[in-house]
Amino acid sequence: FDRIIEAICIGWFTAECIVRFIVSKNKCEFVRRPLNIIDLLAITPYYISVLMTVFTGENSQLQRAGVTLRVLRMMRIFWVIKLARHFIGLQTLGLTLKRCYREMVMLLVFICVAMAIFSALSQLLENGLDLGTKNKDYASIPAACWWVIISMTTVGYGDMCPITVPGRILGGICVVSGIVLLALPITFIYHSFVQCYHELKFRSARYSRSLSAEFLN
Amino acid sequence: FDRIIEAICIGWFTAECIVRFIVSKNKCEFVRRPLNIIDLLAITPYYISVLMTVFTGENSQLQRAGVTLRVLRMMRIFWVIKLARHFIGLQTLGLTLKRCYREMVMLLVFICVAMAIFSALSQLLENGLDLGTKNKDYASIPAACWWVIISMTTVGYGDMCPITVPGRILGGICVVSGIVLLALPITFIYHSFVQCYHELKFRSARYSRSLSAEFLN
Amino acid sequence: FDRIIEAICIGWFTAECIVRFIVSKNKCEFVRRPLNIIDLLAITPYYISVLMTVFTGENSQLQRAGVTLRVLRMMRIFWVIKLARHFIGLQTLGLTLKRCYREMVMLLVFICVAMAIFSALSQLLENGLDLGTKNKDYASIPAACWWVIISMTTVGYGDMCPITVPGRILGGICVVSGIVLLALPITFIYHSFVQCYHELKFRSARYSRSLSAEFLN
Amino acid sequence: FDRIIEAICIGWFTAECIVRFIVSKNKCEFVRRPLNIIDLLAITPYYISVLMTVFTGENSQLQRAGVTLRVLRMMRIFWVIKLARHFIGLQTLGLTLKRCYREMVMLLVFICVAMAIFSALSQLLENGLDLGTKNKDYASIPAACWWVIISMTTVGYGDMCPITVPGRILGGICVVSGIVLLALPITFIYHSFVQCYHELKFRSARYSRSLSAEFLN
Repeated sequence: FDRIIEAICIGWFTAECIVRFIVSKNKCEFVRRPLNIIDLLAITPYYISVLMTVFTGENSQLQRAGVTLRVLRMMRIFWVIKLARHFIGLQTLGLTLKRCYREMVMLLVFICVAMAIFSALSQLLENGLDLGTKNKDYASIPAACWWVIISMTTVGYGDMCPITVPGRILGGICVVSGIVLLALPITFIYHSFVQCYHELKFRSARYSRSLSAEFLN
Repeated sequence: FDRIIEAICIGWFTAECIVRFIVSKNKCEFVRRPLNIIDLLAITPYYISVLMTVFTGENSQLQRAGVTLRVLRMMRIFWVIKLARHFIGLQTLGLTLKRCYREMVMLLVFICVAMAIFSALSQLLENGLDLGTKNKDYASIPAACWWVIISMTTVGYGDMCPITVPGRILGGICVVSGIVLLALPITFIYHSFVQCYHELKFRSARYSRSLSAEFLN
Repeated sequence: FDRIIEAICIGWFTAECIVRFIVSKNKCEFVRRPLNIIDLLAITPYYISVLMTVFTGENSQLQRAGVTLRVLRMMRIFWVIKLARHFIGLQTLGLTLKRCYREMVMLLVFICVAMAIFSALSQLLENGLDLGTKNKDYASIPAACWWVIISMTTVGYGDMCPITVPGRILGGICVVSGIVLLALPITFIYHSFVQCYHELKFRSARYSRSLSAEFLN
Repeated sequence: FDRIIEAICIGWFTAECIVRFIVSKNKCEFVRRPLNIIDLLAITPYYISVLMTVFTGENSQLQRAGVTLRVLRMMRIFWVIKLARHFIGLQTLGLTLKRCYREMVMLLVFICVAMAIFSALSQLLENGLDLGTKNKDYASIPAACWWVIISMTTVGYGDMCPITVPGRILGGICVVSGIVLLALPITFIYHSFVQCYHELKFRSARYSRSLSAEFLN
């Protein structure tokens, strides 16, 4: 039963895609638009997995163990984006991301710089110096990086945390500076999001008005 | 002693409800208003539990074990809402929720879409691919969903957390995008709340002024 | 050595308090002002503990075990507030708290109402219903309250967390609503704080100008 | 191979530094500027470690164990700052920190005062009073300080958390007041950051326009 619904959905999406491709004037530009690529990524995994089932036959146990198939099955999740695409909230999000790429890069650079400095320092203080206690969790810089990102975003899983006094002082500084650093570029993204939302709302209101005017005449 | 206070309170609420029902002009509309439904939900459990005690008699041990009764007893907590209803803060909250239902839906859609994508990816990276370490906590998609919601809101209980390197990179991306995503619709709710609060404050100030003017004349 | 510094500080504070009390015109009002009460609370513990040492004599082991003494010793921490009182930031904080008492009450009411509802629900879902798994951590409503406050503020220690599916769904709702609820009154406190800060800055600037003008003339 | 890239980078930085030093008019002022000191800190560790390798010879095992060398190797991380210096985001951050030093101090004072009060109280409630349960984690005031900073910033690792009822009530108060306290000075830093960013963007736009005008003429 589950498979039938999937087959119908896939069929519908494929038909929609093909029709839009035929209708579109500029074929080249159509292929390069990011939303169409997502559509393609959402549809193809189904066909590939169907083809694989056909060729490998009934030995489904072997087939289920295949890593490739699992990756493909997971990729069907892109449907969610496809279905939610017509929702105004996600359109706003997309527009915001497009306009705020500078602030996104700034956010990334802030995180990377802070991560580089704090992970090196914490690895040194917790594991590098041979001062009595030696914290095995901070054995390498990448492990310390994980701690830094989890602490700066105030998640704090607690799977690793500093135990030495200088390490804890550094941890406190890291957390406070993380709150300040992460919050700064996000304010920009906020303002841009609010602006985009009002623009899209205004545009959709005007669009629906023109549509209803068309129907009335 | 505890039971006597409860009985008096329930008696008062019942009387108040009946009087308001008799006074109200439009009976139909009265029943459909959400606050009155909450009132009903707050009062009825008491009567039902009293009735059950009467019918089942003294075998209170059996009665206490009843799941239905526990659910009913718990539902008395709706009293809290009833008592706090006249408080301006909760009125503001109610008005904000009524006006911001679009933004609430947007918040929900954002969370659901992010949850669908990140849970599928994390389940794949942590458990799906057979790359040496296999994290038992990420055995199913729903379990991964719990991790995603706890990470995106920066709670981070630590009952499950990624251990593989790609899983940790995904975890970092998930947390940062969670902070950004969750914060965006909340800004709208903020602005609406501030506006609602000033409106209600102004209205209550005018109302109390008109009341005092009435008393003076 | 540590004791000598403490004695000098206490002596200074006592002298300052007495002088201010003698100088003040309205003795009654002076005693009732909150900052003077804090001063008194900061000074008296020292004298009481000295007196207790004198009377009980040298048997310091018995004295150290005394709970009263420990409470008194801890109360010396109020010095910190006394020392920091002249700092503009803490003055602003004090003024903000005085002006925003309505919003503070709103914040408290929101937390209490949410705590009552979510703790009762989570206790029911995790422990009350006998559905296979029974989480011992949620044995009582107060224990569930602790979980609710730690989850709503996104701290998430992880000492207790839901394990059943309905409990986890409730946990997700609790966390998201906690972020929204807690953030709402804080925005008001922000705006008030910003206003108070600018007022105090302007006032201190004018005051120092008038002071320097006084010295110049 | 790794070492060759490092040698080339260091060579380039050294050359750049020397050229800038020769070109600069005021030698004294050049040495005292903070960015140049960071440059020096980024370059010197390499030369010192190279010199140490030359003098101590091939016994690299002994050398690797040296704490001094590890500290030096860690300090090479300052390169990251050097490389990222030309990025507008980090320039904005630097300018913001320079202008907001008052608010930074306020943030620090708030954290310190809250830490002093809450750590003393929690240590007393969890360990000081001999009321049945005794939490070993809160043995000393500094350990309680670590708990306070981790709770106030809503990180919540969970390596230590209160178990007594009064300690949990205090924990709840601590977390809520921490959210309020930390958020207050950050709003100031936000506003200053936004202003700095627009100033720097405007300045760089004007600068690049004047540059292009120069090239065209």
